[in-house]
Amino acid sequence: MPEPRKLKYDVADLRTLTREDLDALEIGAGILGTGGGGNPYQGKLLALEAMKAGYELKILATDRIEPDALCMAIGGIGAPVVSVERIREGREGVRCLRAMEELIRTPIDAVVCEEIGGSNSMSPLVTAALGGLPMLDCDGMGRAFPEMQMTTFSIYGHSSTPSVMCDLHGNTVIFSHAVSEVWHERMARACVVAQGGGAMLATAPMQAHYVHQYGIPKSYTKAIALGEAVIRARKAQEDPIAAVCALEGGRRIFNGKITDLKRHLRGGFAVGDVALAGFDDFAGETADVAIQNEFLIFRRNGMVEVTVPDLIVLLDVDTGYPITTEMLRYGQRVAVVAIPCHELLRTVQALDVVGPAAFGYPEITYSPLPSPTRKAA
Amino acid sequence: MPEPRKLKYDVADLRTLTREDLDALEIGAGILGTGGGGNPYQGKLLALEAMKAGYELKILATDRIEPDALCMAIGGIGAPVVSVERIREGREGVRCLRAMEELIRTPIDAVVCEEIGGSNSMSPLVTAALGGLPMLDCDGMGRAFPEMQMTTFSIYGHSSTPSVMCDLHGNTVIFSHAVSEVWHERMARACVVAQGGGAMLATAPMQAHYVHQYGIPKSYTKAIALGEAVIRARKAQEDPIAAVCALEGGRRIFNGKITDLKRHLRGGFAVGDVALAGFDDFAGETADVAIQNEFLIFRRNGMVEVTVPDLIVLLDVDTGYPITTEMLRYGQRVAVVAIPCHELLRTVQALDVVGPAAFGYPEITYSPLPSPTRKAA
Repeated sequence: MPEPRKLKYDVADLRTLTREDLDALEIGAGILGTGGGGNPYQGKLLALEAMKAGYELKILATDRIEPDALCMAIGGIGAPVVSVERIREGREGVRCLRAMEELIRTPIDAVVCEEIGGSNSMSPLVTAALGGLPMLDCDGMGRAFPEMQMTTFSIYGHSSTPSVMCDLHGNTVIFSHAVSEVWHERMARACVVAQGGGAMLATAPMQAHYVHQYGIPKSYTKAIALGEAVIRARKAQEDPIAAVCALEGGRRIFNGKITDLKRHLRGGFAVGDVALAGFDDFAGETADVAIQNEFLIFRRNGMVEVTVPDLIVLLDVDTGYPITTEMLRYGQRVAVVAIPCHELLRTVQALDVVGPAAFGYPEITYSPLPSPTRKAA
Repeated sequence: MPEPRKLKYDVADLRTLTREDLDALEIGAGILGTGGGGNPYQGKLLALEAMKAGYELKILATDRIEPDALCMAIGGIGAPVVSVERIREGREGVRCLRAMEELIRTPIDAVVCEEIGGSNSMSPLVTAALGGLPMLDCDGMGRAFPEMQMTTFSIYGHSSTPSVMCDLHGNTVIFSHAVSEVWHERMARACVVAQGGGAMLATAPMQAHYVHQYGIPKSYTKAIALGEAVIRARKAQEDPIAAVCALEGGRRIFNGKITDLKRHLRGGFAVGDVALAGFDDFAGETADVAIQNEFLIFRRNGMVEVTVPDLIVLLDVDTGYPITTEMLRYGQRVAVVAIPCHELLRTVQALDVVGPAAFGYPEITYSPLPSPTRKAA
């Protein structure tokens, strides 16, 4: 075991999460999951268990830790559909942490979230708590994306290898060197499918100044605030959709009933299409949303209106609860909310990796929200 | 780089291979490949290239090295069909060696062959030569088998992790810990498919006394002798099939013409069936051979006669050259030779892993060669 080293932050700056924070985070991370990233509920159960066992879940702002502190990003890898059926045993993440410390022969100072959207918001918290480390209040996506190379950390030049992957069985794999971020993703994905579909993967540590510069800021604070807004609105019998839109520059772009739904698994990804018939202010209009684990493209009356990397969120029109792609049902009444993504996802480098072309839509040019209605190619 | 340490053997005991030895090894390893293990020809080209560049290919008997010497077994992993289309770049093995030495922080003393049958006879020689190490005269199969857990090293209790896998692109993966040998195989196989189908994999080092006790002895010497016998018989215009049988306790069990041939890829493995109509002494008889990368089961007139782990070898009836499964053609005239496998493959532990049941034939009981004709289930 590595020697504990001097704390690189002031413990007074730590925010200890409560049970209520986790309830709010579950909803907020679901909203930021834009349909993908897996359901945060099971991750919340593991976080609650850790809390019950006496571990504290603490978050820390990225500017409240010394610039040279060593930060390890971590997340679950595997198809979201699998995580519904197979619960993580809970110690995969801390096994990754210890294996990484042994590999680089240096202790880690803080844990970073790869992806705030969906279940990957919860699992790093458990790793941090069990490892006795703070969780930095940021992430690498500001939402959910289906592949590992789609983090801002990778996009802006951090090499994610050597990485460590641990599954619930006890298997440990180190990706020492990959010739590119995409190769790393490809090898890890193949391996996780062989492992039965779910594992935790910790990427090569970064210094805190890099995380501060290239992480999407305040992800946990924002996700918790989003969830609190929904909970508060429901208690006050106010419109939860309006409460969500008020916080993150979101806009309600559709109210519709699901009239058609296609979903299948292709290469480990959930791919499909949801068709909507409008009601209320949107009566007489149709819309459809293309799915690739997440909601990718929103079309109104056949015209592309919102695309990845901006966030397309489907919420239950009455409760404001986020709907993940695997929970979509024929006849469901949903509100579609569009939320502008962070500027770090809108640069030329970022759009190469997370723009419409990267998902197989080379004919669609990303036009940042709020966007004019454009003709579909 | 690790410090060079004192040699654990006497250089006078090394046998330096010649170009002629490699020509013989190509044929002998092909025979021991029992149809699988990949074509040794391309591996021979890399070995010749190394030789031309001034590297020496040296083999050493397993009882001529100190018992505590550290020995690293290595082989190629991937479907044989792929290696026909993609030539290894040649340095994957030595990258594995250096990565392993760095991982365990100890220099390796000698290289061991996982599988003498097919192309995996050649690639470890290149690793040893480039790494300046001797190659021990043994292997983990005495033939070819399709999966990694099928070595005598694994069967008798050696854990093959941590292992190191390097591909031609420059990707390096370490399997630090696998919960079983089969899990290790499963993860590595999935990863190699993602890497494009071919890589070198070095397993956790063993001490020389273990290799001496559980390796199949004298594999290189035997394979070279087999090849020399074929070459000599051809020069002398004698029967090469008889020459092969004279050496390893083999028996010609059929002369036949291929009348039907089914082959397909299933889960990365070449699976199929060859039907033969007898000629010469075998006129009027039929036979068929079941394939799973290697020739697994030989039936005469519908009755099971020889099964894995004994060796079923198909040779060109005129030249004595071994025929791999991917080289089988309709109308080909072949001799079928059965060679008894080593005793280490005939124990209860071994048959659990490499007996007919392990290949999906639970109804067939292995009966060591020479075997009575039995009714197929």
